[in-house]
Amino acid sequence: MAGSQTLLPERILSGDIRALARACSLVENRSPGSAVILKTVFPNSGRAFTLGITGAPGAGKSTLTSALIAQLRSRQQRVAVLAVDPSSPFSGGAILGDRIRMAAHHEDAGVFIRSMATRGALGGLAPTTHDLALLLDAAGFDWILIETVGVGQDEVDVARLAQATAVILAPGMGDDVQAIKAGILEIADVFVLNKADQPGAARLEQDMHEWPRPLVKTVATTGDGLPELLGALETIRANLPARRTESHWDYRLRQMFAERVMARLDPQQVAQAVRRVAGRECDPYTIIEEWLKV
Amino acid sequence: MAGSQTLLPERILSGDIRALARACSLVENRSPGSAVILKTVFPNSGRAFTLGITGAPGAGKSTLTSALIAQLRSRQQRVAVLAVDPSSPFSGGAILGDRIRMAAHHEDAGVFIRSMATRGALGGLAPTTHDLALLLDAAGFDWILIETVGVGQDEVDVARLAQATAVILAPGMGDDVQAIKAGILEIADVFVLNKADQPGAARLEQDMHEWPRPLVKTVATTGDGLPELLGALETIRANLPARRTESHWDYRLRQMFAERVMARLDPQQVAQAVRRVAGRECDPYTIIEEWLKV
Repeated sequence: MAGSQTLLPERILSGDIRALARACSLVENRSPGSAVILKTVFPNSGRAFTLGITGAPGAGKSTLTSALIAQLRSRQQRVAVLAVDPSSPFSGGAILGDRIRMAAHHEDAGVFIRSMATRGALGGLAPTTHDLALLLDAAGFDWILIETVGVGQDEVDVARLAQATAVILAPGMGDDVQAIKAGILEIADVFVLNKADQPGAARLEQDMHEWPRPLVKTVATTGDGLPELLGALETIRANLPARRTESHWDYRLRQMFAERVMARLDPQQVAQAVRRVAGRECDPYTIIEEWLKV
Repeated sequence: MAGSQTLLPERILSGDIRALARACSLVENRSPGSAVILKTVFPNSGRAFTLGITGAPGAGKSTLTSALIAQLRSRQQRVAVLAVDPSSPFSGGAILGDRIRMAAHHEDAGVFIRSMATRGALGGLAPTTHDLALLLDAAGFDWILIETVGVGQDEVDVARLAQATAVILAPGMGDDVQAIKAGILEIADVFVLNKADQPGAARLEQDMHEWPRPLVKTVATTGDGLPELLGALETIRANLPARRTESHWDYRLRQMFAERVMARLDPQQVAQAVRRVAGRECDPYTIIEEWLKV
């Protein structure tokens, strides 16, 4: 097993999809050997365009992602998809699992689809999502689409992870959704007004007028507007500011560091500290100072 | 100044509201001296009941909080409120600022209201929210109400911070809200069906039947149902499992530790590492290993 794992990086770089799938599992589970794989393939990363696709439930994200894959494939672009299911922060159970429309692409070797559960220790995307995106990038995919349901912390995380973010809107989502989703609008590099053939689309387009971001109208089920969407995305890609890459790595290095530091805390030491603080024997500030001395 | 700050803890413990307000500002800004204040008052904390109040925009959280304050004051309970405004993760601008109804309580010395901005580095409640709640607890308030708009990470954070969480629902919020808010239902210790006199309330009550948590119907604007809500909350308070306190401190100690460790990273060292990784000169995994050796 150790022998086959040492060959994984070169198999991934040569386009071996089974090796890639195996490496994804190792990375997602933080298995021994995954760090070596990531380090080895790292120099080959940095070429893909990583696009976050988010929006409220019902806006048609999966259908749009599927239509975008078809559009990209017609231009010989290789596409990887990370489909991030939301899961409750406490139960870990998935809310939505409907990826049926993507099944059409499963037979195409230029398309790699990976579903993963949200499993951030503090909510949001799992930190391994970043490592998986890096792996797919190094494996030579031209586009990496990260599709998240626009719930809570996920949408903020995907905007940090991806180089650009498309926010999918659709008519008939209601004013309440707009109120809740005010935060999601700010992460958009481009808006996709999907279901543009349905009642209320003109009104929604008008409402979005104030936001200083391009808006593309699509009907994902028919493919209408997809060439225009791809054009808008190519423009964004061609004009990516370098600081976006740097702020990504600034965030990511700090996050990785905090995660590793916490993993090194001795569970027994933590449990003892918790009992002392809960019993008011010692204040938490003094305990943290002690931990920092180590 | 240093002299007046050293007196702050005893002034807070003796019920001096101006000293408390001053200490809140010091803590929120992480000013020098705030750590000493928190350490000094810590042994006096642990007596208040900390209740999170959350729900979708429009459910009537502020009105309900105000009605609950009136109910508690009629029973001579001292109440502190932390009103957490949502702010965009990127702009820092507040979406909602409507705290008008709470103004009625501002003349009452048994009520302390503090508004603060959401400012978590990774989204959600600012870590200082925990310290502020601890300060209010030590200052002798019987109840600490933490009101958040149920957006994104805030609701998850408030459930971790508070001893119990009330989720406010109201008829007419639409199915979309229900879909988005599936996560919020799981953090509820009690549901408040507010605006229970409005059309759709019976239907919503029926929909909520499957969730294994008590539900109290209220009309916050008239005070209807508030005695029943207080009764339900008292029952929850009387039956709090000890492990809830321990899981709170387990989470909180890890969070504090990660925060302090990251604050100690040398900004120049981070900036240099970011440039090296962005330029593919060095992989991020090796950099983190180097940082962990220090």
